[in-house]
Amino acid sequence: MEKLIETNFEQLEGYGLDKYSVEAAGKIRELIEKPDADIHFVSGGTQANLLFISHALRPYESVIAVDTGHINVHETGSIEAVGHKINVVPNIDGKITVENIAKVLEFNADEHMVLPRMVYISNSTELGTIYTKKELEAISEFCKKNNLYLFVDGARIGVALTSEYNDMSFADLASMVDAMYIGGTKNGALLGEAIVITNDELKSYFRHSIKQKGALLAKGRVAGIQFLELFKDDLYFSLARHSNNTAKLLALGIEKLGYKFKTNIRTNQIFPILPDRIIEKLISKFEFYVWERYDETSSVVRLVTSWATPKSAVDEFIEYLELIS
Amino acid sequence: MEKLIETNFEQLEGYGLDKYSVEAAGKIRELIEKPDADIHFVSGGTQANLLFISHALRPYESVIAVDTGHINVHETGSIEAVGHKINVVPNIDGKITVENIAKVLEFNADEHMVLPRMVYISNSTELGTIYTKKELEAISEFCKKNNLYLFVDGARIGVALTSEYNDMSFADLASMVDAMYIGGTKNGALLGEAIVITNDELKSYFRHSIKQKGALLAKGRVAGIQFLELFKDDLYFSLARHSNNTAKLLALGIEKLGYKFKTNIRTNQIFPILPDRIIEKLISKFEFYVWERYDETSSVVRLVTSWATPKSAVDEFIEYLELIS
Amino acid sequence: MEKLIETNFEQLEGYGLDKYSVEAAGKIRELIEKPDADIHFVSGGTQANLLFISHALRPYESVIAVDTGHINVHETGSIEAVGHKINVVPNIDGKITVENIAKVLEFNADEHMVLPRMVYISNSTELGTIYTKKELEAISEFCKKNNLYLFVDGARIGVALTSEYNDMSFADLASMVDAMYIGGTKNGALLGEAIVITNDELKSYFRHSIKQKGALLAKGRVAGIQFLELFKDDLYFSLARHSNNTAKLLALGIEKLGYKFKTNIRTNQIFPILPDRIIEKLISKFEFYVWERYDETSSVVRLVTSWATPKSAVDEFIEYLELIS
Amino acid sequence: MEKLIETNFEQLEGYGLDKYSVEAAGKIRELIEKPDADIHFVSGGTQANLLFISHALRPYESVIAVDTGHINVHETGSIEAVGHKINVVPNIDGKITVENIAKVLEFNADEHMVLPRMVYISNSTELGTIYTKKELEAISEFCKKNNLYLFVDGARIGVALTSEYNDMSFADLASMVDAMYIGGTKNGALLGEAIVITNDELKSYFRHSIKQKGALLAKGRVAGIQFLELFKDDLYFSLARHSNNTAKLLALGIEKLGYKFKTNIRTNQIFPILPDRIIEKLISKFEFYVWERYDETSSVVRLVTSWATPKSAVDEFIEYLELIS
Repeated sequence: MEKLIETNFEQLEGYGLDKYSVEAAGKIRELIEKPDADIHFVSGGTQANLLFISHALRPYESVIAVDTGHINVHETGSIEAVGHKINVVPNIDGKITVENIAKVLEFNADEHMVLPRMVYISNSTELGTIYTKKELEAISEFCKKNNLYLFVDGARIGVALTSEYNDMSFADLASMVDAMYIGGTKNGALLGEAIVITNDELKSYFRHSIKQKGALLAKGRVAGIQFLELFKDDLYFSLARHSNNTAKLLALGIEKLGYKFKTNIRTNQIFPILPDRIIEKLISKFEFYVWERYDETSSVVRLVTSWATPKSAVDEFIEYLELIS
Repeated sequence: MEKLIETNFEQLEGYGLDKYSVEAAGKIRELIEKPDADIHFVSGGTQANLLFISHALRPYESVIAVDTGHINVHETGSIEAVGHKINVVPNIDGKITVENIAKVLEFNADEHMVLPRMVYISNSTELGTIYTKKELEAISEFCKKNNLYLFVDGARIGVALTSEYNDMSFADLASMVDAMYIGGTKNGALLGEAIVITNDELKSYFRHSIKQKGALLAKGRVAGIQFLELFKDDLYFSLARHSNNTAKLLALGIEKLGYKFKTNIRTNQIFPILPDRIIEKLISKFEFYVWERYDETSSVVRLVTSWATPKSAVDEFIEYLELIS
Repeated sequence: MEKLIETNFEQLEGYGLDKYSVEAAGKIRELIEKPDADIHFVSGGTQANLLFISHALRPYESVIAVDTGHINVHETGSIEAVGHKINVVPNIDGKITVENIAKVLEFNADEHMVLPRMVYISNSTELGTIYTKKELEAISEFCKKNNLYLFVDGARIGVALTSEYNDMSFADLASMVDAMYIGGTKNGALLGEAIVITNDELKSYFRHSIKQKGALLAKGRVAGIQFLELFKDDLYFSLARHSNNTAKLLALGIEKLGYKFKTNIRTNQIFPILPDRIIEKLISKFEFYVWERYDETSSVVRLVTSWATPKSAVDEFIEYLELIS
Repeated sequence: MEKLIETNFEQLEGYGLDKYSVEAAGKIRELIEKPDADIHFVSGGTQANLLFISHALRPYESVIAVDTGHINVHETGSIEAVGHKINVVPNIDGKITVENIAKVLEFNADEHMVLPRMVYISNSTELGTIYTKKELEAISEFCKKNNLYLFVDGARIGVALTSEYNDMSFADLASMVDAMYIGGTKNGALLGEAIVITNDELKSYFRHSIKQKGALLAKGRVAGIQFLELFKDDLYFSLARHSNNTAKLLALGIEKLGYKFKTNIRTNQIFPILPDRIIEKLISKFEFYVWERYDETSSVVRLVTSWATPKSAVDEFIEYLELIS
């Protein structure tokens, strides 16, 4: 951020063509081993999703996603607002499966139905889980065979790739998708997501789409500089690792108190199942989200740690939970 | 239709303002006992749905429908194409329940989610079932309390209201909704659906919407005259009764051969469960739709009778089914 | 139309795949000498325009049209409603010029502006004028060189091709465009326009677009049969010739009374300039449209004759005009 | 900007509800003397425009703007992409007139045309000119009488209100509009525009619109803090005054060399008319935009000064111009 201040009086090319954005894009290309990828910096995840999806699809084409998918739930109908149906399939531990994608294709058989043309996944998922290399390979292969684009929402790609359960490199991931976005906002940046397009067919005129949707930052360096800093010296990944480690600590503490979880702990989102009377007390002291009812007397809550969460905050939470348990 | 020929050389007001359309609208207002209702004739059901929904909703508002709802499955994403999300709930025998509507409202709690603003139902439903007066009253009351419009897709309203299980008058129905459309195409007309708007707030500028979506018929009498004829002398309902009776006959024949059904028979759509090897033979001789797999060796098929289905066609089907069973 | 009655009890393939529609499409392909053209029947001109334009363009692409173009004025913003800007250029006698198209390309130079990708013209134009073969060749050539689709709104193509000033065959026209539609509604049909797509790239999934926009007629034969009859025995063109001849008669009568015209008479739309006090009287007896103010005391009016206008109606108009002049 | 750094480790409410954004909104309400105005911070001008316009208009409604209007030219069809036609009228010195608005209303008379429902103006305009209080009062009054919303694009409102020719206060302006946005990006901020809604009818659910269009900043303080700083101690206006003064200096220098201007100098955009051979040389040393051809040998160029333009840059430009003149 100090970088931002330093540059405020420089005379720079506007609209994302400044030298910082160009250099940041270069760093990302190196990292993912895709020298020809197109990189565009925008200010938020919903924007990145609606931009790529509206750019790639024809009016009658749809995108397949799991029910918990961010585009399906928490983006105020942004994909429908640009004209496209989301074909929703049940999530398996937050993830999509080849079998469920295949069912959508089979079902949408004629012109009375939409034409599925893209698979949208998040890694890590909205349940904090991650895809294994084998799972993603299977999905990618199926997509290629069936004329489906594969798009990865990487709002939380940092914690996915630094999870101790991850077996993919950034380059592995990039080689299997048509496009993805790399999240800055949820991993240390003030704002900024980097849209990465690797499929040549989808590159043309993307800046037209960005401008049309109101996403072209006049001072593009605002996002560019942040990515430049994040991808210097492994900062992006060390921030992610911190998030994961803090979450693990938090999960261990909760587990010790005898509570169970909705999903296995993989990254910085954990979903403990807690009695409602406990939740009621916790929520007055800590900020979190009640995910869903578990049974008559308990619910699943979502706890998220970040690059800025200190260990002391975890300790405080556990202590209080112990006190009221 | 002979009426259409007679009028082809008359000099008439265009765009749905001709005397036939005006008279047909009058007849419908009488029938539904809504002297102030606005009536518009358009050429198809998908058009009627997308017109009303896009006219009534703000960009961030959504419509609630069951998973089997026509707008959710068989209209090629037309509602999403005009910008709106469909909040999908599971169907109970083809129908929506107050409980499921309430869950959608509870879930879509803040600005990260769409704002549910309409309930869409079909009567008869896509599974051939119908709403009872009590069911519809409960839904209507809930909608009024919760600032939701209630819209009825009446592509098959004729068979619903003439079902022997029906306990509602057309006027009852009209008194409980904000708008509906009365289907002509599936009940004897060459083309034409009558959109009925009873909520005053939603009436303004509807003709602007019709024209914008390409649905304003230059020679509006094409649809108007057909409705005029259909609603003379009970023709509309007698055609519907014929459909229902023929379906009942067909169902009885199938039942006698020992087959079961997915749903109770209420109108002219029936859903027998048949062995796959039987279906394979039937489908080479008759035109119908395989609805869904039932178990490893059998499937649910959809059989639809119409106002034009002769009793002999039913007999032929049953005889052949008996032969191959 | 009698044909329509005859077929009402036949069991036909629905949704435009019936034998009548198939045969009508065949006749059109022969007529335009494009055996591989895709032909789709829809119910109106606004629908045909919005369907093709939304099908062909990407979100950031625009269509170029003259200020008087039907899509720019009289379709309630239907093209904008499906997301596309119309780049408006001044009309020269109702027509577009290569020079004006070129200016649009030059002006829209970067991603802050739309990407012009189609030229829309009407023949005959909204001012009743027609394109010469040479004019259309120049436009077509320019479009090909500049990656622009050429689309012809042929709502009034019948009167254009039968104008005594026309020097193009239907096949000439078809060879120069990427797509066009042939108007039925304004040339004798109850409803129906035939969309003709000759550019292979634009053919795929057009039926998906038709269904999504609510334009797929369940009983497609309604349109198909009418085109079949119209293109039998030259009926389509003889109806058009009648319109043109009647207009010429009307124009001659008006001219004799000393009035001038805004444009040269080419087809069935004529634009005499009349004193306002005359117009006031005429409009109480005849139905027509005041086009624009000419000077302080007179205006341009639009008079349109049709296939159904009898000579007696022309005489009546002229006699009355003489009386009040 | 130093403020941004200080706050990066604070735990703040996200999505624009942080204390900095709340405080900045308060300051703006005071400044414009509208204690009930809703204030929303977004990241760019195109976004602000498309957000407000899509939020306020029904599908068949349109917005009136001058031909040079930013939404009509330089936003890649963003307004059409959200479904609305722009009714374009000729600019008079960059400005709209009541007379031209009235003509649009008169012309768009029925359901075959869009329903004009909003007037969009920019102050200062795209030609650097400004509205006088009297002009704006006339427009505002006309809008109120004719059921039109008045929306001001204030990307350059700072230079407008600090122009020596300006006779309106910020509060005057706010009292005459239904909504406006106050530009940060072009007046010292890294990013950020403040949308101000004063018409109660248009306030509801605006955050839903912001989220849906991808414009809700997760870390809303990024914009909020900048506005807080800008509206402390008159910084916003002193930056604007600097832009205007520098432009005036530049204009005087150019005038002294004998050149004329397309428009009177009012703010920080000036439009000198220069010989093409001069422009060619200038453009290799300075960054500016050739606006339009003036005559065969000269063109109008656009020069823009900013809050960051030093006097030395002006001197350098004038010296070089003198040298090559």
